[in-house]
Amino acid sequence: MNFLEKLDKTAKLNNSLLSIGLDVDLSRVPKLFLNKDDPIFSFNKAIIDETRDLVCAYKPNIAFYEMYGTYGLESLIKTIEYISADNIPVILDAKRSDIGSSSQAYAKSAFEVYKADAVTVNPYLGYDSLEPFIEYKEKGIFVLCLTSNPGSKDFQMIGGEDPVYKQVARRVKEWNKWGNLGLVVGATNPSELKEIRTIAGDIPILIPGIGAQGGDLQSSVKGGVNKKGDRAIINVSRSIIYSSDREDFARSAKLFARRLKDDINSFRYLG
Amino acid sequence: MNFLEKLDKTAKLNNSLLSIGLDVDLSRVPKLFLNKDDPIFSFNKAIIDETRDLVCAYKPNIAFYEMYGTYGLESLIKTIEYISADNIPVILDAKRSDIGSSSQAYAKSAFEVYKADAVTVNPYLGYDSLEPFIEYKEKGIFVLCLTSNPGSKDFQMIGGEDPVYKQVARRVKEWNKWGNLGLVVGATNPSELKEIRTIAGDIPILIPGIGAQGGDLQSSVKGGVNKKGDRAIINVSRSIIYSSDREDFARSAKLFARRLKDDINSFRYLG
Repeated sequence: MNFLEKLDKTAKLNNSLLSIGLDVDLSRVPKLFLNKDDPIFSFNKAIIDETRDLVCAYKPNIAFYEMYGTYGLESLIKTIEYISADNIPVILDAKRSDIGSSSQAYAKSAFEVYKADAVTVNPYLGYDSLEPFIEYKEKGIFVLCLTSNPGSKDFQMIGGEDPVYKQVARRVKEWNKWGNLGLVVGATNPSELKEIRTIAGDIPILIPGIGAQGGDLQSSVKGGVNKKGDRAIINVSRSIIYSSDREDFARSAKLFARRLKDDINSFRYLG
Repeated sequence: MNFLEKLDKTAKLNNSLLSIGLDVDLSRVPKLFLNKDDPIFSFNKAIIDETRDLVCAYKPNIAFYEMYGTYGLESLIKTIEYISADNIPVILDAKRSDIGSSSQAYAKSAFEVYKADAVTVNPYLGYDSLEPFIEYKEKGIFVLCLTSNPGSKDFQMIGGEDPVYKQVARRVKEWNKWGNLGLVVGATNPSELKEIRTIAGDIPILIPGIGAQGGDLQSSVKGGVNKKGDRAIINVSRSIIYSSDREDFARSAKLFARRLKDDINSFRYLG
């Protein structure tokens, strides 16, 4: 089963477009984990155990694991293995980009070392930098398009009527010969998100930026889904996983995730 | 001593603008290393031992280490430690990019886990994505500007008269409040390199793409140096480290590196 089939299947089974971002910062996890053998994995496991029937995917951001050195990366590998046992897709948020054999090495790392189902990549270096990822036909590749931060205006908007981010969306559509490409569009740009969905047709759009970054849920869901109300992946990280710092944190994450999932569903078919 | 001081000092001491890219692919190293305890580090050590007085910097590309999992990353840490003992600057080629706390985590990883002196970053996400790196005032940050691959035309050239890559060069100059920024410009674009040097003033420019990628050495050096004939870092990877696959490979790397260093010097003051 390829990434897109796995995503669609999980989204249908759990009736959910919610992705949970597993961005573990040990200074923010409940203290009880700090004495465990593998605090990062243990924390992730507790969150996964309570939310696995509420999501269409999990999205660990590798930056948070790299920060803890090889020890953190071992926790990442265990986390992805644990999620994969449930057949839930894992999108490794790595925003990788390089050329030639370096790009091949990154693709190998994402898909063969970390064993992710999908990865996020940065388009700045153009087509040949993405090709080694794309050639993993069974995997998903989400290309950064328009992001949710203030700096998205610095370079993504260059080009007047036909700015960089729209050209990225169009090219990704063209390059999608194996049907394994997707886009990343921040939730803080609802009208642009709608335009990008029109360009992108049915390809999956990963939408971070709800919650901590202030994106509006309703407009993001309405603008992000395809005509059938599918293929938007609404990612929420910190406001779910750190919804409580007490012993009941996993239960609290579950309740918040369920509410988000239901809210998302209430907006899916309004477009 | 901050990165730029360290770079200038090493360039002067060794009378060299050559950087060697430590991009280890175990399928290409001499067989004798494969039985060693740590083949990646042992290979790097052999190269470093023969070339440390011929370079201004070493540039390991982290993709090649990630590809071997946490084991490869341990070899990277050892390699950087070994180079740092000689006070030679290490530019970690990581092309990282993210926003907010993820960007902070990447900066922490590059400078505190891997302990690099400088890192390459991708500008697609704009200023706030680079800020956590820039705030490490003692470290160097090389921002991708114009690359040497065919895909550089896909997005870096958007914007007509004032394309993305020129705007990147200009903004990096503006953002250089701590004097720790640099640019990455591929060797295959000599006339654009010259324009970028004019925009960039005295900031260091890292120039990959000589050798395997076909960039011309003379025009790259002439276009890349500042008015004093400094601050260009000419990086060569595979054609040095794999110049022979026999037992004499390190000696062969040394001879080739020395020739490149001398050739670079013969072009430095011609501009």
